Amino acid sequence: MRVELLCTGDELVTGLITDTNSPWFEARLFELGVKVERILLVGDVRPDITHALLEVASRADVVLVSGGLGPTSDDFTLECAAAAAGVPLVEHPQVVEWLRARYAKLTIPLTPAVFRMARVPQGAEVVQNPMGSAPMVLLRLGRCQLFFVPGVPREYRALAEGEVLPRIRAALERDPERVYRAFRLLRTVGIPESQLDAKVSGLVARHPRVVFGFRTHAPENHLKLMATAPTQAEADSALAAAEAASREVLGTAIFGADDEEYAPALAKLLTRTGGTLSTAESCTGGLIAQQLTAVSGASNFFIGGAVTYSEKMKMAWAGVSPELLARHTAVSRETAIAMAEGVRVAVGTTHGISVTGYAGPTGGTAEDPVGTVYCALASEGRSTVCGRYSISGDRDRVRLFAASYALELLRQRLLAEPSSP
Amino acid sequence: MRVELLCTGDELVTGLITDTNSPWFEARLFELGVKVERILLVGDVRPDITHALLEVASRADVVLVSGGLGPTSDDFTLECAAAAAGVPLVEHPQVVEWLRARYAKLTIPLTPAVFRMARVPQGAEVVQNPMGSAPMVLLRLGRCQLFFVPGVPREYRALAEGEVLPRIRAALERDPERVYRAFRLLRTVGIPESQLDAKVSGLVARHPRVVFGFRTHAPENHLKLMATAPTQAEADSALAAAEAASREVLGTAIFGADDEEYAPALAKLLTRTGGTLSTAESCTGGLIAQQLTAVSGASNFFIGGAVTYSEKMKMAWAGVSPELLARHTAVSRETAIAMAEGVRVAVGTTHGISVTGYAGPTGGTAEDPVGTVYCALASEGRSTVCGRYSISGDRDRVRLFAASYALELLRQRLLAEPSSP
Repeated sequence: MRVELLCTGDELVTGLITDTNSPWFEARLFELGVKVERILLVGDVRPDITHALLEVASRADVVLVSGGLGPTSDDFTLECAAAAAGVPLVEHPQVVEWLRARYAKLTIPLTPAVFRMARVPQGAEVVQNPMGSAPMVLLRLGRCQLFFVPGVPREYRALAEGEVLPRIRAALERDPERVYRAFRLLRTVGIPESQLDAKVSGLVARHPRVVFGFRTHAPENHLKLMATAPTQAEADSALAAAEAASREVLGTAIFGADDEEYAPALAKLLTRTGGTLSTAESCTGGLIAQQLTAVSGASNFFIGGAVTYSEKMKMAWAGVSPELLARHTAVSRETAIAMAEGVRVAVGTTHGISVTGYAGPTGGTAEDPVGTVYCALASEGRSTVCGRYSISGDRDRVRLFAASYALELLRQRLLAEPSSP
Repeated sequence: MRVELLCTGDELVTGLITDTNSPWFEARLFELGVKVERILLVGDVRPDITHALLEVASRADVVLVSGGLGPTSDDFTLECAAAAAGVPLVEHPQVVEWLRARYAKLTIPLTPAVFRMARVPQGAEVVQNPMGSAPMVLLRLGRCQLFFVPGVPREYRALAEGEVLPRIRAALERDPERVYRAFRLLRTVGIPESQLDAKVSGLVARHPRVVFGFRTHAPENHLKLMATAPTQAEADSALAAAEAASREVLGTAIFGADDEEYAPALAKLLTRTGGTLSTAESCTGGLIAQQLTAVSGASNFFIGGAVTYSEKMKMAWAGVSPELLARHTAVSRETAIAMAEGVRVAVGTTHGISVTGYAGPTGGTAEDPVGTVYCALASEGRSTVCGRYSISGDRDRVRLFAASYALELLRQRLLAEPSSP
């Protein structure tokens, strides 16, 4: 089944609003095994909309058209649909009745403009809108089924969910060529996209039913597995095999699957091992603490974080000695280690994480230019580890990756630890 | 000038990501008086991309094509462009050189896959990507100029801003039918969108050449003024009048204009008054420190931030007494005040900011339910102020608004202070 989406409205082509309806609907369809072929956004220009309707109807089996069904003068999608179908616009008595009932209930004056919403292409079918005034309209153009719904997100979603998806589902069940899909998103951190691709490229040929896709979501890279098969059971089993093979190749670079985000995954690990955590941040300036405390229940493991943005506070809160700072400077392996060990002891936690570096755009030295970051991890009864990283990009990017590298020191250590009893 | 956008990528047609690049670019073009005609999103299917390229090139003068320029096997936009143009893909020696230099600097292994990014349609022009590996590619198809850029937002924006828009601007300057526009974005904080609308609605009739638009960007609300006129001078003067009237109505709720963001604006004020700052955060967990230190040069005024996520650390780092905590609990006006005053003294700064509250989803008391936040500001030689706020929404939203309310205490105090000599 070939499905396209057509969204109309000047606000969509002038940057005033972002189309969030389409991604929502695409995801719902994808779960049914249907990949939307195209999404087309056009402004409020009559010939452009008419032309777009004819164009999408010439290719697709099903088109969801949104926007331009309201009562104002810039709402003329159905007028364009009538032009495309070569039929007149007619007032639909059922819609008139719905509008009268709705406006009486809302005690809003029923102006003549309201009845613009009752004018539909001759021969079109109408469905009541549970969330608003403008009805959903169904129209066939050649062999294509068009669904017209309002662009207002809650009306769009109510009608797409309650009326459009059930009709598509029913059609799919009658389709002898129906395909079934299964998905898995594997979230990785610490390997660049090109290396991720290189690592899994050897698997592709052995999993012909699975598409391997990549997505960068800095500092993470995600591997998307999509299996397609003639039955759901075959799709599921093809996916499971590809997932197992990918996990074997990627190992602990995978921190979560599907909706599982980084900070909650790390929080779960910390909770499982019964550990507590403190942080001493210089160039990341609280970013690590903020990411961890965004997780509900963070107070169970996160006890305190010091943003030591001056030498004075590195001494006061993270116990770094003035001599060490004087000898090695604030951005050095020695200072990172002292910060991690110092904050761990000061706060009294199982683990202490630190970051110090040059986030830029100014600063840095010949040996440690802008983008150089030292991250350290101190843990009770374990030797302290410290990494030096060279991060390219602007201040935001250096901070983002620095936070990620620091947290990775902890995650990799926790993965190697036994669970607490 | 007819401009269209073509975005490629399975993630855009399967609901995995929302296309935020296009609205950003549309808005930038609209400021130049150009309304984008169509935005087309297609999945990673070779014939679909090739067909889409031929289709957009047959109608538009300029097309910005994004996505599919990376090193992985699902990146084949340029292959489709070559097919559409009827030319072979060739390795571009200049791009090879850029890639070698970049990978050497990043010390990432230069795998053969990397050089996929150097293969461009024969005859295409290339421009170096300041933010990533894949270059921008320029290609003509008939009378249409196509610009190919990566879909990664920071690379897309850097190239669209630095390379595409200047070329479009130059072409527009040669167009005799051009209309002139002038814009101002007034950024406010602390007033809900409906109140912002009510405050400026009286101005609309007196400024017929100016469109007043509103945009919510939590915790901020922005007022967008757009003047249109037959000459640039008339557009500028209509805009200036509307801006002056809006500023009079909105006062200090406006913290910045156009690209001026909140933290840099506050940083400027702090620098102007010669003040330094420390923070003690509980429920915001480092969010305030992170926002402030995202500003380059923050070390001039930001000295230290304590994320006191436990009673113990509220005592140790912010000097809150155990008796006060026992009597008033950690979430109280008294604790917020003690945290702000305590951290200010401990760090030795002009100002000290604190936040304590219930970010949810669990916690809270009958008097102070989830969403209740206390923010305090202590300043040298001034009496400490403290506000209690009830914030609706989820954990992220409570934290975001709590940080904003706390910083607003400081900004409003600084606005009332004289500049340092």
